[in-house]
Amino acid sequence: DPNLKLFSLNSNPDLAMEIAKSIGVELGKCSVTRFSDGEIQINIEESIRGCDVYIIQSTSAPVNEHIMELLIMIDALKRASAKTINLVIPYYGYARQDRKARAREPITAKLVANLLETAGATRVITLDLHAPQIQGFFDIPIDHLMGVPILGEYFSKREFDGDIVIVSPDHGGVTRARKLAERLKAPIAIIDKRRPKPNVAEVMNIVGNIEGKIAILIDDIIDTAGTITLGANALAENGAKEVYACCTHPVLSGPAMERIKNSKIKELVVTNSIELAEEKLSDNVIQLSVADLLGEAIIRVHSDQSVSLLFD
Amino acid sequence: DPNLKLFSLNSNPDLAMEIAKSIGVELGKCSVTRFSDGEIQINIEESIRGCDVYIIQSTSAPVNEHIMELLIMIDALKRASAKTINLVIPYYGYARQDRKARAREPITAKLVANLLETAGATRVITLDLHAPQIQGFFDIPIDHLMGVPILGEYFSKREFDGDIVIVSPDHGGVTRARKLAERLKAPIAIIDKRRPKPNVAEVMNIVGNIEGKIAILIDDIIDTAGTITLGANALAENGAKEVYACCTHPVLSGPAMERIKNSKIKELVVTNSIELAEEKLSDNVIQLSVADLLGEAIIRVHSDQSVSLLFD
Ligand SMILES: Nc1ncnc2c1ncn2[C@@H]1O[C@H](COP(=O)(O)O)[C@@H](O)[C@H]1O
Ligand SMILES: Nc1ncnc2c1ncn2[C@@H]1O[C@H](COP(=O)(O)O)[C@@H](O)[C@H]1O
Repeated sequence: DPNLKLFSLNSNPDLAMEIAKSIGVELGKCSVTRFSDGEIQINIEESIRGCDVYIIQSTSAPVNEHIMELLIMIDALKRASAKTINLVIPYYGYARQDRKARAREPITAKLVANLLETAGATRVITLDLHAPQIQGFFDIPIDHLMGVPILGEYFSKREFDGDIVIVSPDHGGVTRARKLAERLKAPIAIIDKRRPKPNVAEVMNIVGNIEGKIAILIDDIIDTAGTITLGANALAENGAKEVYACCTHPVLSGPAMERIKNSKIKELVVTNSIELAEEKLSDNVIQLSVADLLGEAIIRVHSDQSVSLLFD
Repeated sequence: DPNLKLFSLNSNPDLAMEIAKSIGVELGKCSVTRFSDGEIQINIEESIRGCDVYIIQSTSAPVNEHIMELLIMIDALKRASAKTINLVIPYYGYARQDRKARAREPITAKLVANLLETAGATRVITLDLHAPQIQGFFDIPIDHLMGVPILGEYFSKREFDGDIVIVSPDHGGVTRARKLAERLKAPIAIIDKRRPKPNVAEVMNIVGNIEGKIAILIDDIIDTAGTITLGANALAENGAKEVYACCTHPVLSGPAMERIKNSKIKELVVTNSIELAEEKLSDNVIQLSVADLLGEAIIRVHSDQSVSLLFD
């Protein structure tokens, strides 16, 4: 369909190429560079008048650059008479700033939603929002896909020497762990952190049976990897035979890689919702592609078919 | 007045301090830092409920970081029940992207105006917009101040050994040059660039008498300093005795400092609308403060007095 145009900005060029291949279109010609003073310069090098445009961009680090690229691209497309402007945001940044946890905090996840709509976005396709409530921050249609099926498929094909158990690193992630457990027909366990008194180290209590089992920790985001590596070590100390970790969004900032290397995590399985720098791609980091999932979602949206089948 | 609160973000902390001193208030307590993954974290450490808040922030480089800081700060203030949210933007970035000069270009200066309003800004005070039309990009009140009086005052107090002439580096800047010339009771000249044929070097023709005079070039922004240094050299070649250059906004990106050093410019006079990195502050760079001007504007706005006296 010549009315479907796919554009990549700078966050995930490889994923964008894969998506284009997956749905059988060419990526739209456009350059997103910087003027000498750091201001973003966008040149869209083909007509998009009357087209349904899909922009692939994660608001991953450098998050403020990526958000501004997306906003300016939307502005340019709107002024160039695009019919619809559909954002494919594999990783939605600022999602942890989704409520006032303390007085006078911003709610940046909502602010960014408002900014994208103000710029002219007409639809959003995204993956594993940190909180599903963020869907309600948008007043335009949003399709919210899940990484669990992709992670589940990988682990279901992998041979393990023993029984597996899916572990949530905290209470907030139990629903996600349950979804993975169902796919793998495995039981779940939960790491129950608790601080007996202020300024006393946390106690890691494990709810569920992990003794002698292959434990697979699952989270949505792994950022500095504090939670997941402490969890992995607690599992190992409490008798897990091996520990794997997986997540949809490998933020992996600051001390993350060092912590993972020094932890009991045998293998880290992530998706390419965030492009990983060369130095983060090591033997025990497996990156699975969300290209087919996002490609399928784009095709369904474009042909007015239900996307809900892709939800779990 | 305890209802007037002044906050500084990260673009111009020194200027903000000066403004606070100039109007006799303390800067509001707030920290603007980054989480490990680069996301902006803002903590406003005092109540601003019911207050008129003024935020000092230029959208200078790193422009996208500074814009996002401003948007998130506005969001936090709005949710913390500020009565009014007044932006003091000494330098308004993206101002050169103020029209579609080519097909499918964004109009980022308008986009940013929309974003600031969406976040919750209620008023803007700014200085020398690259195009005065940008005032119309806002639907909230905007006060547009001028740097010319500050530059004029400096040159009027300086002793020159000869007659001065104010020079506009291009046709677009003649109005500004005229304003400075009036204050200094000096004549004007214009550098009339013209490209005889495509791919042939530009010819610099000087309209007006500069022979044996002290020439003062004036522009609003000096970015890579190409225009201004070529102009300065043309003035020297055509018989100017000495060449000075001045502008309101010292963007000074990329090759700017090197070009200025190797040019006929004897002294560069700028304001602190953009904070200059240490290495750009040399003997022949003079930085004048806009603190009193902006302070006066804040006081007048806050007490519902006319700001128009400050316009020229
Ligand atoms: N980029 C970030 N990195 C670390 N912590 C964050 C970030 N953004 C927000 N937060 C904090 O994380 C908390 C929310 O995380 P959660 O409880 O996992 O939803 C809030 O207290 C936020 O202040
Ligand atoms: N940050 C920037 N640096 C250099 N050129 C720019 C920048 N932003 C916009 N432009 C270009 O500058 C031109 C407008 O400049 P002017 O004619 O001085 O208003 C437009 O063609 C823009 O594409």
